[in-house]
Amino acid sequence: MAKKTTLKEFESVFPKLEEDLLAWVKQYNLPQEQQDWYKKVLEINTLGGKCNRGMSVPDSVSVLLNKELSEDEYFKAATLGWMIELLQAFFLVSDDIMDGSITRRGKPCWYRQEGVGMVAINDAFMLESAIYTLLKKHFRTHPAYVDMIELFHEVSLQTELGQLCDLLTAPEDVVNLDNFSLEKYTFIVIYKTAYYSFYLPVALALHQLNIATPKNLKQAHDILIPMGEYFQVQDDYLDNFGLPEHIGKIGTDIQDNKCSWLVNQALKLATPEQRKTLEEHYGKKDKAHEAEIKQLYDEMKLEKLYQDYEEKRVGEIRQLISQLDESEGLKKGVFEAFLSKIYKRSK
Amino acid sequence: MAKKTTLKEFESVFPKLEEDLLAWVKQYNLPQEQQDWYKKVLEINTLGGKCNRGMSVPDSVSVLLNKELSEDEYFKAATLGWMIELLQAFFLVSDDIMDGSITRRGKPCWYRQEGVGMVAINDAFMLESAIYTLLKKHFRTHPAYVDMIELFHEVSLQTELGQLCDLLTAPEDVVNLDNFSLEKYTFIVIYKTAYYSFYLPVALALHQLNIATPKNLKQAHDILIPMGEYFQVQDDYLDNFGLPEHIGKIGTDIQDNKCSWLVNQALKLATPEQRKTLEEHYGKKDKAHEAEIKQLYDEMKLEKLYQDYEEKRVGEIRQLISQLDESEGLKKGVFEAFLSKIYKRSK
Repeated sequence: MAKKTTLKEFESVFPKLEEDLLAWVKQYNLPQEQQDWYKKVLEINTLGGKCNRGMSVPDSVSVLLNKELSEDEYFKAATLGWMIELLQAFFLVSDDIMDGSITRRGKPCWYRQEGVGMVAINDAFMLESAIYTLLKKHFRTHPAYVDMIELFHEVSLQTELGQLCDLLTAPEDVVNLDNFSLEKYTFIVIYKTAYYSFYLPVALALHQLNIATPKNLKQAHDILIPMGEYFQVQDDYLDNFGLPEHIGKIGTDIQDNKCSWLVNQALKLATPEQRKTLEEHYGKKDKAHEAEIKQLYDEMKLEKLYQDYEEKRVGEIRQLISQLDESEGLKKGVFEAFLSKIYKRSK
Repeated sequence: MAKKTTLKEFESVFPKLEEDLLAWVKQYNLPQEQQDWYKKVLEINTLGGKCNRGMSVPDSVSVLLNKELSEDEYFKAATLGWMIELLQAFFLVSDDIMDGSITRRGKPCWYRQEGVGMVAINDAFMLESAIYTLLKKHFRTHPAYVDMIELFHEVSLQTELGQLCDLLTAPEDVVNLDNFSLEKYTFIVIYKTAYYSFYLPVALALHQLNIATPKNLKQAHDILIPMGEYFQVQDDYLDNFGLPEHIGKIGTDIQDNKCSWLVNQALKLATPEQRKTLEEHYGKKDKAHEAEIKQLYDEMKLEKLYQDYEEKRVGEIRQLISQLDESEGLKKGVFEAFLSKIYKRSK
């Protein structure tokens, strides 16, 4: 029987990987001050998250093998999972600079911490490099080594293209709703989020077990990309309609001029007058403007629209899962596990 | 007989590679506006340099084969050379942000151009990603494919560690000469410059020809790293003692608080009084302070010290070249070509 990992188990693998990375840079005779900095960069930016992406690698491997993992199997899967967390750290450190964000996981963003500043850009690069150092150290002789490297390269590029589209479509300082569209929205969420958060963990699990056949990868892709899209729509919904005590923050998408699912739906359905309200109040750093938009969203019944979307989308995803061909070793359970974690979540 | 490439020949390869990259991102259904942006990022940041690093790949391959290259050989070597130029573009775009630089190659730095700003960080990532897209497209079936990927990963990390040491040792705003030392200086120049500028082109040339044996790589490394170190010392010397009409710019290392070879030599040799002069005037954004340091450098005869260093260092490098074992296909001529380009250069 498959067994789900806990955050504690998953986190217990990190110190070993950190040790590998520190030993690796030590061989370059890196001065002590820089070694200490590197260690701090790794810990502050990689630890402290929920690790949902990373943990889904061992969870998927366990479902695929239909058993509790041996120590070695778990270590390998968790190592791949931590590489996703490193990839995410690389993106979050730099996204926070690009977005001018203030806090991350309840603390000041890394670039805003004492003595860091723009050095954080180079730190982001080192977080990315750590992925390939670990891959080389632990998977150099694995039959899928090259495929794993190429997968990380491709998903990195996809995420960068998603981020590019997001940055150009919704700059925080220039509000232009003509820039928004559901097509762009879909591109952004698929490329910026779905590939690395949903497709990558399962593709890595398949590679670890040497069952990443073209058919399995395609089936995983065709379920996980819509699921990642649904996840992000849900995120946008919760930013406005979720309870702050559940989601752990107060939503800021309206004030931040975010290209959110809600504003794109509103733009699509708006009467000329409602469009005027959107133009006047969206993306302004002010509570009163925000309240106008919130009222419009209520008036336009976007909550109900979301609920209908959710039911329809989840129905389609369930349908895809039910049709899955398991003949090459992929299992429906992998996707059921993902879906059960996100369906009707309130946080 | 080997034949040296010209900038024009080398540049003529770029449009094909750009086409490959644009076709690659097009398959992701990237919106048109983002495709245009990507094209601009590639052109503005990769073109317009001297391409010394990139061109040394075809030059080295030609020396190793002792003949003029066929069209296919040249294209492959130049493609590898352009990957070095992309790697450099990735670093320069981000270094300029980290250093708060104003101009690059006579134009405003990319992040300072209209409508760019911090989006440049993501652009830097896309430049890096382009390396691996091109490697996959043109070298997927090459026997050294994995080695080339790993080489780019390793050299990227080395350059990042060099940059980290540079950023922590010589922040532009906090002058603390106690931070400087010749050991740190050496680490910075080797890691930040020598690996990617000197070792990388020759290592790639060896891989292209499938003669990157451990012995050849080690021999190349042991000559090119000291040569890269010498090159950077020379650069630091020219920043102060070179003629602006030769080097094409007015040196700013003193005002910028750079951890330069000159200041490290001055610190090593200074009397307590001279040390006081350094403490009082180094790293201050002011012509008068700078003039005090320049006078001190003259007083301490650093020009002569450099010339002695140059003769000694070049003698050692020539000695290393003369002892080269050519039995596995490496050639002395590769290193002689590098050395002749930099010995006693005035720009």
